[in-house]
Amino acid sequence: MARINPNYSRLAAGYLFPEIARRTREFSAANPDAQILRLGIGDTTESITPTIIAGLHEGVDRQANVATYSGYGDSEGKGDLRESLAGWYDEIGAKIDPSEVFVSDGAKSDSSNIQSIFSTDSVVAVQDPAYPVYVDSNVVSGRTGDSVEGRYEGLVYMACTEENDFFPALPEGKVDLIYLCSPNNPTGAVATHEQLEGFVKYARENGAVILFDSAYAAFITDPTLPRSIYEIEGAEECAIEISSFSKWAGFTGVRLGWTIVPKALRCEDGEAGVLHGLWTRRQNTFFNGASCIVQAGGVAALSPEGRQEMQGLVTYYLENARIIRDALAELGITVFGGDNAPYVWLQAPGGMDSWGFFDKLLTECHVVGTPGAGFGPSGEGYFRLSAFGHRENVEEAVARIRTRLTL
Amino acid sequence: MARINPNYSRLAAGYLFPEIARRTREFSAANPDAQILRLGIGDTTESITPTIIAGLHEGVDRQANVATYSGYGDSEGKGDLRESLAGWYDEIGAKIDPSEVFVSDGAKSDSSNIQSIFSTDSVVAVQDPAYPVYVDSNVVSGRTGDSVEGRYEGLVYMACTEENDFFPALPEGKVDLIYLCSPNNPTGAVATHEQLEGFVKYARENGAVILFDSAYAAFITDPTLPRSIYEIEGAEECAIEISSFSKWAGFTGVRLGWTIVPKALRCEDGEAGVLHGLWTRRQNTFFNGASCIVQAGGVAALSPEGRQEMQGLVTYYLENARIIRDALAELGITVFGGDNAPYVWLQAPGGMDSWGFFDKLLTECHVVGTPGAGFGPSGEGYFRLSAFGHRENVEEAVARIRTRLTL
Repeated sequence: MARINPNYSRLAAGYLFPEIARRTREFSAANPDAQILRLGIGDTTESITPTIIAGLHEGVDRQANVATYSGYGDSEGKGDLRESLAGWYDEIGAKIDPSEVFVSDGAKSDSSNIQSIFSTDSVVAVQDPAYPVYVDSNVVSGRTGDSVEGRYEGLVYMACTEENDFFPALPEGKVDLIYLCSPNNPTGAVATHEQLEGFVKYARENGAVILFDSAYAAFITDPTLPRSIYEIEGAEECAIEISSFSKWAGFTGVRLGWTIVPKALRCEDGEAGVLHGLWTRRQNTFFNGASCIVQAGGVAALSPEGRQEMQGLVTYYLENARIIRDALAELGITVFGGDNAPYVWLQAPGGMDSWGFFDKLLTECHVVGTPGAGFGPSGEGYFRLSAFGHRENVEEAVARIRTRLTL
Repeated sequence: MARINPNYSRLAAGYLFPEIARRTREFSAANPDAQILRLGIGDTTESITPTIIAGLHEGVDRQANVATYSGYGDSEGKGDLRESLAGWYDEIGAKIDPSEVFVSDGAKSDSSNIQSIFSTDSVVAVQDPAYPVYVDSNVVSGRTGDSVEGRYEGLVYMACTEENDFFPALPEGKVDLIYLCSPNNPTGAVATHEQLEGFVKYARENGAVILFDSAYAAFITDPTLPRSIYEIEGAEECAIEISSFSKWAGFTGVRLGWTIVPKALRCEDGEAGVLHGLWTRRQNTFFNGASCIVQAGGVAALSPEGRQEMQGLVTYYLENARIIRDALAELGITVFGGDNAPYVWLQAPGGMDSWGFFDKLLTECHVVGTPGAGFGPSGEGYFRLSAFGHRENVEEAVARIRTRLTL
């Protein structure tokens, strides 16, 4: 008799964002006149820029002509896109060979699936709070016990708090896999060179592998902050980097991301190259490549014109972040992030808990945000506001918070 | 220390198609003047038709306009596409609710990942020969032992041979998961209503779940043959169906597929609905939806004009299949399939083994096919030729086989 994967029943709650959507729908049904403003899911709202649109159209047109039509491509991605991405790394001082770039349909797919090439008894460390996919994918794959008081047994939670500037201390014991995200979702904190150097040193000394999520790297404006873990010496021996066009090019709906698995990367079982080969095999077996149309858009995005246009989008969203941050600070709410990241992380006022503030903000202001507790136990009492949104909506949300939120 | 998933080391060989590509590259390097014709990978070659191209362009244009721009969509797919697909099922007499349709980036992703919602101690039965992804995804997930003489321990191989018209007998013992593919890749055989009824009866009696791959359903011309397992009474209680636009619309490079998980589907652990909920959770956690641009193309493909154009593509490839089949039969080679499927399955002449015939065909005719042994032990001695190709190339390949192949 068919039996289900029992690990699914360990998942403590529904995936965070569908849960937010559910509560919002319920409120909306009960209050049909309420105009809800969404600063919850980090979802891009501004249209894709002309150079990239032209690249996508060109991708479509190629499929209309038998001479340029392409069927199956390599699971790893098209050569021109892999080369463009390697070129981008070169510019920021990281040496990546195009063969180390694996194009995918997005960072969510890769950050959830990357664990599958490691053994199920790996000890996993995550930043707390963190993007829920890191935790959930490891729960489903059997690397944790049950959830007890908001913590899965067997998982190492690396607390990110105001005290440590939202960047964790090194794990105390030995761990095998370390998820790091910078600029961080949800806290908006960006790791410094020195902070990443500490983790690279730990990983090399302990044979651990860092799974580095740089999906928000485009939002780093401070030139002293690293945009890739490969800016750190030795990282190519101990780190996989996962990144995305979603927030950079506005591709949340279009779907395109990439993962770097360096050939120099090592793990206990073998020489350098084993993990590169394993991810190749994984992608060949479980994936058939990102859409050729979308990849054509990715190439256009990385052209000089595309890059300039994307910078315009990034600047727009960062201005939103500034508006949100300044308004909250004026109200006396403690805020973090939002300067080199599209997320503002705030302390729920008056000692409220995260879901309590979610309901309060929804009820009083008709504004949807994301409860910090949804990202891990150390997120309790915090709240994330996303800077993705039309300017007028962000301004309206801020105006409502100023006038309607009872503090 | 990070350790790899040890199941990867059980995989007996590289994934079939990269291995074919490797041998072909080597031959090509040694024989730079040889014009190689590829009837190996089942890869579409004809351009996408006008209605669908228009739908894709429209999908791009929507992203260029802030009023129609869409960011993240539901992981399960866009409502209009799910409704169009449910409508297609309705036409063929299968009642599928749009909420039971999960849109994806292709049947390969779904057919490799579907096993992940079932327990790792599930007993898995596969047709032999079969699409390698079914087997490999279960090996990697730990449901088999080592490969011994071409068979993974613990896996139930259901032989498909000339004696049973390439459709297997029911498993002798109890199995939990049964992969069936019809029209079959690689044999080109199509299951009859009666044959599927036998498996549905078995699955309901034994609490097994059938994983039905109908990616080639569009090639069925005989109206008496079922195009979906849901044409069989009771299948909604015991079967998941995985299908694709790849071969129907020429979307092998564009990437779009779907999976049906009926709400009536049961398994040992729970009432109807559990597996529907589990696949929803899996897709929410590990996937972020198919590209919105590509989904717009899918909606256009299912319009009356799109359907008519796709039928033109199908007819074209089926005529290729007829040309291949007739030529081989004339040479006295025993051939199967190719009438309701885009694959011709042939017995390697003179008692040769599959890879031997691969090398012979490549060396003598510069034609690439697919060794039957690559699909499972019962494929040994057989060979697959794909009907996907430009007509002139298929005719040239057939002419070379007629004149150059030594029998």
